[in-house]
Amino acid sequence: MRELSLAEQASLTSGAGMWETVEVPGAVPALTVSDGPHGIRRPDPDSDDALGISQSIPATCFPPAVTLGCSWDPELARRVGAALAVEARALGVGLILGPGVNIKRSPLCGRNFEYFAEDPYHAGVLGAALVTGIQSGGVGACVKHFAANNQETDRLRVSADVDEQTLREIYLPAFERIVREARPAAVMCSYNKLNGTYASQHRWLLTELLRDEWGFDGVVVSDWGAVNDRVAALAAGLDLEMPPTGTDRQLVDAVDQGRLSAAAVATAAGRVAALAHRYAPAAGAAAANPAGAAGPAGAGTAKADAVPAGPSGWDVDAHHALAAEVARASAVLLRNEDAVLPLDPAAAQRIAVLGELARTPRYQGGGSSHVTPTRLDAAWPALRRLAGERTELTFAAGYRLDGTADAELAAAAVTAAAGADVAVLFLGLPDAAESEGVDRTTIDLPADQLDLLRRVTGTGTRVVLVLASGGVVAPDGWWDTSAILAGFLPGQAGGTALAELLFGVHAPAGRLTETIPLRLADTPSYLHFPGRDGHVRYGEGRYVGYRWYDTVERDVAFPFGHGLGYTTFEYRDLEVRPTGDDRWQVAATVANTGDRFGHEVAQLYLAFGGDRPRHELRGFTKVGLAPGESARVRFEIGPRDLAEWSVPRGDWQVTAGGFTVEVGASSRDIRLRAELTTPGDGYVAPVGRMSTVTEWLAHPVGGPLLGAALAPALDGQPLDPALVALARSLPLAKLAMFPLGLTPEKIADLVSRVERATD
Amino acid sequence: MRELSLAEQASLTSGAGMWETVEVPGAVPALTVSDGPHGIRRPDPDSDDALGISQSIPATCFPPAVTLGCSWDPELARRVGAALAVEARALGVGLILGPGVNIKRSPLCGRNFEYFAEDPYHAGVLGAALVTGIQSGGVGACVKHFAANNQETDRLRVSADVDEQTLREIYLPAFERIVREARPAAVMCSYNKLNGTYASQHRWLLTELLRDEWGFDGVVVSDWGAVNDRVAALAAGLDLEMPPTGTDRQLVDAVDQGRLSAAAVATAAGRVAALAHRYAPAAGAAAANPAGAAGPAGAGTAKADAVPAGPSGWDVDAHHALAAEVARASAVLLRNEDAVLPLDPAAAQRIAVLGELARTPRYQGGGSSHVTPTRLDAAWPALRRLAGERTELTFAAGYRLDGTADAELAAAAVTAAAGADVAVLFLGLPDAAESEGVDRTTIDLPADQLDLLRRVTGTGTRVVLVLASGGVVAPDGWWDTSAILAGFLPGQAGGTALAELLFGVHAPAGRLTETIPLRLADTPSYLHFPGRDGHVRYGEGRYVGYRWYDTVERDVAFPFGHGLGYTTFEYRDLEVRPTGDDRWQVAATVANTGDRFGHEVAQLYLAFGGDRPRHELRGFTKVGLAPGESARVRFEIGPRDLAEWSVPRGDWQVTAGGFTVEVGASSRDIRLRAELTTPGDGYVAPVGRMSTVTEWLAHPVGGPLLGAALAPALDGQPLDPALVALARSLPLAKLAMFPLGLTPEKIADLVSRVERATD
Repeated sequence: MRELSLAEQASLTSGAGMWETVEVPGAVPALTVSDGPHGIRRPDPDSDDALGISQSIPATCFPPAVTLGCSWDPELARRVGAALAVEARALGVGLILGPGVNIKRSPLCGRNFEYFAEDPYHAGVLGAALVTGIQSGGVGACVKHFAANNQETDRLRVSADVDEQTLREIYLPAFERIVREARPAAVMCSYNKLNGTYASQHRWLLTELLRDEWGFDGVVVSDWGAVNDRVAALAAGLDLEMPPTGTDRQLVDAVDQGRLSAAAVATAAGRVAALAHRYAPAAGAAAANPAGAAGPAGAGTAKADAVPAGPSGWDVDAHHALAAEVARASAVLLRNEDAVLPLDPAAAQRIAVLGELARTPRYQGGGSSHVTPTRLDAAWPALRRLAGERTELTFAAGYRLDGTADAELAAAAVTAAAGADVAVLFLGLPDAAESEGVDRTTIDLPADQLDLLRRVTGTGTRVVLVLASGGVVAPDGWWDTSAILAGFLPGQAGGTALAELLFGVHAPAGRLTETIPLRLADTPSYLHFPGRDGHVRYGEGRYVGYRWYDTVERDVAFPFGHGLGYTTFEYRDLEVRPTGDDRWQVAATVANTGDRFGHEVAQLYLAFGGDRPRHELRGFTKVGLAPGESARVRFEIGPRDLAEWSVPRGDWQVTAGGFTVEVGASSRDIRLRAELTTPGDGYVAPVGRMSTVTEWLAHPVGGPLLGAALAPALDGQPLDPALVALARSLPLAKLAMFPLGLTPEKIADLVSRVERATD
Repeated sequence: MRELSLAEQASLTSGAGMWETVEVPGAVPALTVSDGPHGIRRPDPDSDDALGISQSIPATCFPPAVTLGCSWDPELARRVGAALAVEARALGVGLILGPGVNIKRSPLCGRNFEYFAEDPYHAGVLGAALVTGIQSGGVGACVKHFAANNQETDRLRVSADVDEQTLREIYLPAFERIVREARPAAVMCSYNKLNGTYASQHRWLLTELLRDEWGFDGVVVSDWGAVNDRVAALAAGLDLEMPPTGTDRQLVDAVDQGRLSAAAVATAAGRVAALAHRYAPAAGAAAANPAGAAGPAGAGTAKADAVPAGPSGWDVDAHHALAAEVARASAVLLRNEDAVLPLDPAAAQRIAVLGELARTPRYQGGGSSHVTPTRLDAAWPALRRLAGERTELTFAAGYRLDGTADAELAAAAVTAAAGADVAVLFLGLPDAAESEGVDRTTIDLPADQLDLLRRVTGTGTRVVLVLASGGVVAPDGWWDTSAILAGFLPGQAGGTALAELLFGVHAPAGRLTETIPLRLADTPSYLHFPGRDGHVRYGEGRYVGYRWYDTVERDVAFPFGHGLGYTTFEYRDLEVRPTGDDRWQVAATVANTGDRFGHEVAQLYLAFGGDRPRHELRGFTKVGLAPGESARVRFEIGPRDLAEWSVPRGDWQVTAGGFTVEVGASSRDIRLRAELTTPGDGYVAPVGRMSTVTEWLAHPVGGPLLGAALAPALDGQPLDPALVALARSLPLAKLAMFPLGLTPEKIADLVSRVERATD
């Protein structure tokens, strides 16, 4: 970099266009980046859509993070990442703008479909696996949106006001795990402010925490348009502004005027150059992949029969099959009364397939992540293919996707249901209900769909409800259904995958990563979302998701971690073995006690009591077991798993005491428990003149000193218990008010003696 | 004050002792102050108890604020205040350290018995009436604890971290109303920090808000020992440090060194001198009232037969009768199935009176407010007096007040219950369970009492539960009782009052000022109380009490405002009449439709929708009606009643729109409703470069300007609805990124044109 001029260096710290970094001929190649963490989104050069949101070159549309997360399968996420890398390289893309690992703070967040979970451990493990997969293919991953970007409302300005402990325990750990374990090429800062400072110019966030503490050595890139003060952003640690705003000159001027160090510009430019050198594909790779044939129309809801021709450069069939595998692994069977599922394809039966979404699938979300799929499976034709000869299938659309009531469609569907043995009813949120940039205001299904649901269940026919949505929808009206299969947004192969699950070719293997509440008013952030007047206060603190519901003992519709299959599992033989200081290995046996193959996700929670959340996820293992088969699942517990963030100490802290190891099938279905004890990390908080008598008495040096100082005054005196209680909460300095012989001078002497002894 | 030296002035700004201000002979008299807002607490000079907590000169122990508040009767509060002033003057006291008007944020706050309500309007109205009564008698009142002192845990250090809107709408309005309407002689700052700064040295709180905005012209006194930096405190607006810490010299030095202005010291000293001149009784008044005979032993629970001789100086009988009136007016009949109450004194019946608290009443709380009563009524002898000849009364203690289980006592009580027609069971919290300085950790009754309750209700005998506690207790186990009468802490005449209510001599006339939840985990501050590491975050924001339960639709045991009598009331003929800009008069008729005299508290709530609390108390009126009688109750609504605090504006704001007027008998028993509309206060928020497109389009000047600027680019273009939604949330400055013809220069021009137009 030494040879580049300051102006050239400055030029490298913003893009060359919407999706490219600057090339310095002979020195630094251009790097192409692409949106779409669940599929590559390269703008179609023949389109006039500058953002490339509506028209892009076809690529495999894998299920987005909401769905992939429900697989609870990091190896599957890694394979998706590797496949994304193959497509990225084929399309000339060197950096994928994903994954998104923000926490699902409220079910209303319009972009929840791009995020994994309400739990940071889960989001970190899945995100790290996806990053590892992407980067194993020679393509960079860019983790986003850093940090505390948990809503779309006013996202370009709003200050997420989050206390330090909540940040450390909830909103940062997924990023931390990914940075430490998967070493992503880039991190994207978010639009919002964090505690009053734009993330794009938040020095603590982008430099002190990310680089100095976590060891990040890649590029920090802005979310598109997130920079508000170019000089402040670069000084804070933002390396690359995207897209460019023609403000490179501001950096040069700032250096000339002494407001910015030349070294800061050189460092940022050097990082961008290193990224480009590492990930820019060989020249011509992109050119070798011209725009494919026009894909389906822009919206995520598209007629399935309009299948485009696949592009070249990767095994389109294999990637489609992988997308199907993810959809199957991630579909969550919420309920299955009387084993109505799976449907027997060989039975003589009448099945009414109802709902426009069975024919016109909703399979991804809207906004920057929107991908033009290589092909698109709908459930209705797939169900027809799988049904045996004796099964009579009928279809009725039932409702329109635009939400306008259609009495004729509804009546036909109800008639079809009444004449069937089983009604398989596909409901869900239409495209317009959730998209980047807009938060939802309800967790209800559209009114016309709910009305249809009531009428269909009213026929008395058994109803299997199949749900499509990127965010949680409320259970109002679900109670009379026999089964509920939540497919979320199942990607381009989702139709086939769901059909195979319904007919038992495979068993659903997903688990919820977000609690489904009974009502919106039960959600932890209900009174604090989406804020107002430029601030959103995270009033619920670290009590997000199941940490809230389980701690305040609120009833829920379906708990975090919940999901059924077509078999049953037994948990037994919990064993906890110490392996070092505050380290244990936990093992348990999971046995398939049913008569079909199935997957189980064994979940490890730790419960600490006191004012901590009821329990917290610290591990999970997914196993696939044949009938009668069992497996030993193992988890590691280390000091960090025991720790909580101590604000006064500014560090993680392990407090001495007992805690409970829980192993189970959901946050509310704990099957095995063991009690453990930790001696704590030995930290002793310092005491001073404003430390209370109780704190002094608990201090190894201060306790005896204070006891000795008080002894003359207290000797032989009977003490009023109420006064003792009062006194114990008094800061030492306040004891001078009482006739205890503790003058201000004696108190000062105690303080200095403790300081000397503990220095 | 001109003649006093700086040192003399400084000496006036701290006390002369625990309960006296400094006398400057020939210039400023000493003023004696007294703790105990529900009764005067003058230390007994013959006692060696320096704090005077355990032994003090007898004075009437009125029901503390928890109880008086339940009267919902400001006129009664005023009369209590006047009576307190008479006793204060008789005892040589010029300033009463009360009332306490902090908000009951959590039922666990150990000092809730000294506070009125979970609602700031209620606390402000009752507090103002008490101050008016006290000061009408020539004695000063000192409102406390200013501000956000809502817990005892770590109260000398903890920072109450409260957002500005919550402070303004919940924690400050009671103080504001009292200062503006009742002009108290003094305000006591609290121990705690407010958002990081000790209240005792919080300039915004003590000067900018209290004096400059609210017009307070009295003395700000420290809570006892609340000063941590004498110079900073005085500079911030703290006039009087109590008790003295020998730091007056620090002020003189600070003035000498230019760190403190001499004028600040002179101002504070002048205020203290003015207070002393106004309220110091004529010399000798105190001496005329020597210590009375020794009262009952220190604890609030005392054998009722140990009645002390009354002191002279006021009409002891009349004040005792007033205390009884308050207890009757404030007892809350929570439930009364099958009209089991009132008991008929003339009936032939066997009544088992159970519970040590019937014999040994708990009638006040512990700590600085503890008063030595002039006499003390227990319920058991009063019930015996009131019962007719055909009523057979038996008594069994049932449990011990120290909480140790006593199988023999319990068995005897169960036997007595089984043999009776009605069991009247007195349960409650013993003294040790709640006191200043300590918060509670549960809202359960003691385990042995709950066990007794279950066994007594298990006999099948109808059970009337009579509760004594300063804080809310949970309803676990109450469900099988026929009636529940909550007397809270009924003061020295409580035993007689409760007996009269049970036998129907009078009807209970109190209403809850604090929601009784089903469980502690349902309370709004559950996860944020009492904080840790020196901070308590008010995470629930303005959703305190019924604002929380009613907004999140949480079931409760008994709602805010609830209370029964021995008759029924009908509400009708709601009339809402505009009387000016954003002013209305509301009137409704309340009619006694039963067959006994009774009191009703008609409550006015306003409901605004949006993200505001479900509804908020804005008025109440208590009426006493004979059978068949009706009264017209009237309320005024003004602009402030419609307003909420706007943080960006830094002022109260009335937003245009509809709202609902509700009149009812509790927050969950709304009987009458009317819809109103306000045009708003006309405030237009300024727009700038970071204002969103939506905000610009809504602005009267900016809207047309932006529309015109965008017209060329948008002319005739079909717009993608998703993009439009995205664009509307974009700050104006960000539009430069898009091909809309809005260059940074044009945007700057728009901004300056709006600024010029609205200047």
